Amino acid sequence: MSIYQATASAPVNIACIKYWGKRDTKLILPTNSSLSVTLDQDHLRSTTTSRADPSFTKDRLWLNGKEEEINEGGRLATCIREMKRLRREVEDKEPNAPKLSTFPVHISSRNNFPTAAGLASSASGFAALVKSLATLYQLPAHPSQLSLIARQGSGSACRSLFGGYVAWEMGSKPDGSDSLAVEVAPQSHWPDLHALICVVSDDKKGTSSTSGMQQTVETSALLQHRIKHVVPERMEAIKKAILAKDFDSFARITMKDSNQFHAVCLDTEPPIFYMNDVSRSIIALIVEYNRVSVANGGGYKAAYTYDAGPNAVIYAPKENLKEIISLIVKYFPQAENFKDPFQLFGTQGVGAGGVVPGFNEAVAKTFPVGSVKSLIHTRVGDGPRVLSAEEGLLGQDGLPKVLA
Amino acid sequence: MSIYQATASAPVNIACIKYWGKRDTKLILPTNSSLSVTLDQDHLRSTTTSRADPSFTKDRLWLNGKEEEINEGGRLATCIREMKRLRREVEDKEPNAPKLSTFPVHISSRNNFPTAAGLASSASGFAALVKSLATLYQLPAHPSQLSLIARQGSGSACRSLFGGYVAWEMGSKPDGSDSLAVEVAPQSHWPDLHALICVVSDDKKGTSSTSGMQQTVETSALLQHRIKHVVPERMEAIKKAILAKDFDSFARITMKDSNQFHAVCLDTEPPIFYMNDVSRSIIALIVEYNRVSVANGGGYKAAYTYDAGPNAVIYAPKENLKEIISLIVKYFPQAENFKDPFQLFGTQGVGAGGVVPGFNEAVAKTFPVGSVKSLIHTRVGDGPRVLSAEEGLLGQDGLPKVLA
Repeated sequence: MSIYQATASAPVNIACIKYWGKRDTKLILPTNSSLSVTLDQDHLRSTTTSRADPSFTKDRLWLNGKEEEINEGGRLATCIREMKRLRREVEDKEPNAPKLSTFPVHISSRNNFPTAAGLASSASGFAALVKSLATLYQLPAHPSQLSLIARQGSGSACRSLFGGYVAWEMGSKPDGSDSLAVEVAPQSHWPDLHALICVVSDDKKGTSSTSGMQQTVETSALLQHRIKHVVPERMEAIKKAILAKDFDSFARITMKDSNQFHAVCLDTEPPIFYMNDVSRSIIALIVEYNRVSVANGGGYKAAYTYDAGPNAVIYAPKENLKEIISLIVKYFPQAENFKDPFQLFGTQGVGAGGVVPGFNEAVAKTFPVGSVKSLIHTRVGDGPRVLSAEEGLLGQDGLPKVLA
Repeated sequence: MSIYQATASAPVNIACIKYWGKRDTKLILPTNSSLSVTLDQDHLRSTTTSRADPSFTKDRLWLNGKEEEINEGGRLATCIREMKRLRREVEDKEPNAPKLSTFPVHISSRNNFPTAAGLASSASGFAALVKSLATLYQLPAHPSQLSLIARQGSGSACRSLFGGYVAWEMGSKPDGSDSLAVEVAPQSHWPDLHALICVVSDDKKGTSSTSGMQQTVETSALLQHRIKHVVPERMEAIKKAILAKDFDSFARITMKDSNQFHAVCLDTEPPIFYMNDVSRSIIALIVEYNRVSVANGGGYKAAYTYDAGPNAVIYAPKENLKEIISLIVKYFPQAENFKDPFQLFGTQGVGAGGVVPGFNEAVAKTFPVGSVKSLIHTRVGDGPRVLSAEEGLLGQDGLPKVLA
């Protein structure tokens, strides 16, 4: 008897033009388009194995080895149902195709980064889920079509169906059929864009993005202006910047949009704060780092962006990462040695860090060890990958493999 | 020979609808109207003595005993010149009036609160300056007319020419002659509105409000929407709330406008932050304090507002101050005993503070001693006061008295 199983991995993406607000909470249709950079799966990824088997009694899913409830009408159930529907279309056209759409599925998913890092794992997770089922079901679907389904799991997941530079076009149809991800440019177009993720410690439990964004939709007087008048222009401008590999424009738009996203959070009643004093100080460092470069006749050298939490993501051309890491380490001493995947620092490591000449060191204070818990250096990456059977996360018995 | 001298004191005011942005930086004409509550001079005030004497060689001014330069064309010089111009009008009409407008003046001004407290002293300072000169010159001027001159010293100073509840109407004329303060309601209309000022320690040197607001005017995509569409409505709504002594509406509008002011600061390029983690936590405490009240069928019990710095001002009806002070002291232990001007706590003092029943204590952590450096309990107060000769700050010699 055949085993019907497939394994795929999918990347994390970090938005430059932020998604904040739904016009339809069930279908997850956004109030504005957004744009992100897909990060390298070599560093951060979700991996998912799906198996269809008529002997299974029901659809089941394990996340990092722990079984999760698949609630009727919930987002997981919606994604699985939609994928089975696409499979049924295949079966209807090819009468000899096995009736996988009628089999229950077992799904095992793992993230290679700790949940405690505060990185949104729902985007990579739902993208990997959809990609593994699409592979299992041998769907002819284009990534944009799959993005329609991943979107219904977690809005920003739709953008993780592509590598490189990805737009989520908000669409206008009530059924959401035109609210999907499209590739603005592949990773290969501008491969030298790197990212440094600063994992920031926080005392305070933040507002979840799901409830936060609807509070903003309901109460912010500024959000509507952002949606109607600011984002459409910025989407066009940043696409142009990406196509021209114009980091200066990319950086300015990215920072402005991060600021404006947090501004509309603050304009919410009651106000929502995601950034803390550490986040603010990282902003001050990047602003000063860019100021020095501009004062010396250069352009912007780095761009910060913050999602619904205190973590900073700093985008920069590859050649600036050594300076940026030194800068961050100087103000935010690290408990552990910096993991240096691109071997920028050689055997002696980063050391105590330092600043570029002309940098005004007084723009921030030095924080206690642990204020930035860890640094992850990565770069723009490719889209979902289909993995080999050996990399599967389900054992012979159809249950998650126990990791060594 | 006569001594021509007058002494006046003027109050601090704290805005509920914020002034942020000038349409004319020289005349200090704002991009939107604003509204404030005048605080009690018994607790916070600037006192100014002005003397006109033909034997003086030039106009001179001392602030807290230290001489300040009166720069040609600067704001101080403008205010003195404008006051002399009004005096000349009096002299032109009354030929027997002494020609004080031709005499140089000596001016001595003191604040009864430390500059380090981070309270804007320019508002009370310029209001006291203008009031003392108006008294010296025996001008028949209405406070709104004086507010036109104080405005040219420091925008928000115009609102300190009245007690109670004060609007600064932005006006529309290019010469600024209709950009002045008006009384919305006197102190006596709603005397039970109290205020707790939380003086917050900050590591970071903030952006000055003068330069910050013009950065926002030049770069924020959201500010224009605020100016055109949000503030006009809020001005009307908060005036109504004040006239109706409707604290619930007053509180909601005040908090929303504080949030939106800080939101447009964040939407500035580069972003401006005035609030820090302490400020954020005070917001979380007030939000929770109001939530408990509303959950129990009551209304809002307190309203926070933040100017261009991390200090919180909490407005509340008098009867809630005991709870509010207890709440703040619990999370922000004080180095010194709370000065209790209204004798809320009796001889044993506040102690360790505490929360009302049903309060979720996890909304903030307890901060180290000194995070909130001090607490000032005050209330809505009256307008500028003319003081007696004995309270004058200039000695026989026309120089500042040395304080005992």
